[in-house]
Amino acid sequence: MNAVIVGLGSMGFGMGLSLLKGGIETLGVDISKEREAAFREQGGSQTPREEALASADAAVVVVVNAAQSDSVLFGEDGIAARLKPGAVVINSPTVSPAYARETEARLAEMGLLYLDAPISGGSVKAAQGQLSIMASGRPEAFAAARPALDAMAETVFELGDAAGPGSAMKVINQLLAGVHIAAAAEAITFGMTQGVVPAKTVEVISKCAGSSWMFENRGPHIAAGDYTPHSAVEIFVKDLGIVSDIARTARFSAPLTAAALQQFLAAAGAGHGREDDAAVAKIYARNAGLTLPGEE
Amino acid sequence: MNAVIVGLGSMGFGMGLSLLKGGIETLGVDISKEREAAFREQGGSQTPREEALASADAAVVVVVNAAQSDSVLFGEDGIAARLKPGAVVINSPTVSPAYARETEARLAEMGLLYLDAPISGGSVKAAQGQLSIMASGRPEAFAAARPALDAMAETVFELGDAAGPGSAMKVINQLLAGVHIAAAAEAITFGMTQGVVPAKTVEVISKCAGSSWMFENRGPHIAAGDYTPHSAVEIFVKDLGIVSDIARTARFSAPLTAAALQQFLAAAGAGHGREDDAAVAKIYARNAGLTLPGEE
Repeated sequence: MNAVIVGLGSMGFGMGLSLLKGGIETLGVDISKEREAAFREQGGSQTPREEALASADAAVVVVVNAAQSDSVLFGEDGIAARLKPGAVVINSPTVSPAYARETEARLAEMGLLYLDAPISGGSVKAAQGQLSIMASGRPEAFAAARPALDAMAETVFELGDAAGPGSAMKVINQLLAGVHIAAAAEAITFGMTQGVVPAKTVEVISKCAGSSWMFENRGPHIAAGDYTPHSAVEIFVKDLGIVSDIARTARFSAPLTAAALQQFLAAAGAGHGREDDAAVAKIYARNAGLTLPGEE
Repeated sequence: MNAVIVGLGSMGFGMGLSLLKGGIETLGVDISKEREAAFREQGGSQTPREEALASADAAVVVVVNAAQSDSVLFGEDGIAARLKPGAVVINSPTVSPAYARETEARLAEMGLLYLDAPISGGSVKAAQGQLSIMASGRPEAFAAARPALDAMAETVFELGDAAGPGSAMKVINQLLAGVHIAAAAEAITFGMTQGVVPAKTVEVISKCAGSSWMFENRGPHIAAGDYTPHSAVEIFVKDLGIVSDIARTARFSAPLTAAALQQFLAAAGAGHGREDDAAVAKIYARNAGLTLPGEE
């Protein structure tokens, strides 16, 4: 199998490495020539772009949102027109189910397959080939994508035989993830008003019914005052925005999503957009006159 | 050791059984004479109330809230005046840290010890002696309570040498638990608007970063349409109310707590107060014109 991977950010670079480890010749494509060179140095294909695209069996798109995905696929230098008939586009960004369905249809008209394949797991798991992928698409799309999926993922949820359900499940996951991060920040700072230090809240609640995957993962960031961006505040401004847009279209009232989005928006507006998403705690702390660990 | 347990509801009855299994002679006290008789039939003490209170080393109070706790301890027929000097009151309801501190002081004036000891774990774990107890109190109170704690709890978090931190941690836990239940309902019903059935959301998200203890526990109730009350909607009306009251006093802005409380209030107002707390999903579904599993 030959593949191209478009988007060599923290997720895409790791996924590209996993493709290489899986024995798949893979060209790395990015807007940054430095990242492209870095990927070649790690064993990436040396084949010129046009030639690699023309021979690729799969194109993995790992960009930030639907607009970038559209640009990569259909823009001026778009890859869809360059892929061979029967190639599969494995699309990873968090997008609306409607976007996934439209893109599947648009690519089908061009003789291309589409796998609706949002990812979960973070950059470390990306590089270890241990992502979770929430996938849906035609059986032919799954078949064409299989070697790449096997190389990149520990778990592939097969959620349906057309695009849409994969993206729907990812959006459901992001609703919960965003609410849980904001809830962790709310609970930890609330505890501070009652004299409970963040480290103690994290230690105890992690073993109690109030815990969540996000509480256990992000709580220690707040307790340590470490906002190194594993996943940034801006990601949840974007993803809870997608949830909100879909909910509005569906006439679905989502009050927790709305409240959490406002907290992430405030964090971004206050200048913390590029920090770890746990920095939403800074809004709670500032609003309550609290001093978080790591602050003066 | 001799003990009395006051409040033989689903938690208290099980905790009383655990005390008996631990070899502690225990009198069960309840406003219901039937429940008192049922506890005696399970091996509870046959000693008359006044005599049992006068000889008890520990009194475990398992009522619903601070008002009931006050009534049990200091009301017309209150137990505090009947306990011997040095006996310890192990207080389990979810109360404010301020209430816990005040009660510790009030009992100290009467020569009694107080352990701030909210519980977590549900009725099954209560009967198996496997609760988590979030405890704080004077070293003498811990020492006096130890045999009873060993009988009732799998895990005792020792959170400080005075009343307050135990209740604070429990309230932090309830903030998260309530928000997570409402978030689970929000996410599962949101998924339904995108064509994803609840059972599939529960299956997939339980293995993803969007999961929480409450999602994994309550999600299946929604998927099965089973609202048998393991813990009722009214419990979170109460507990998120306690969180809100404390937050207001502390001038702490808690938007997720506020949003979740409104959903539980709507569920109670719509007639679901005695159903399982997962019935908060019925508000989301009604507001979006969705039909949940188990509904016509």
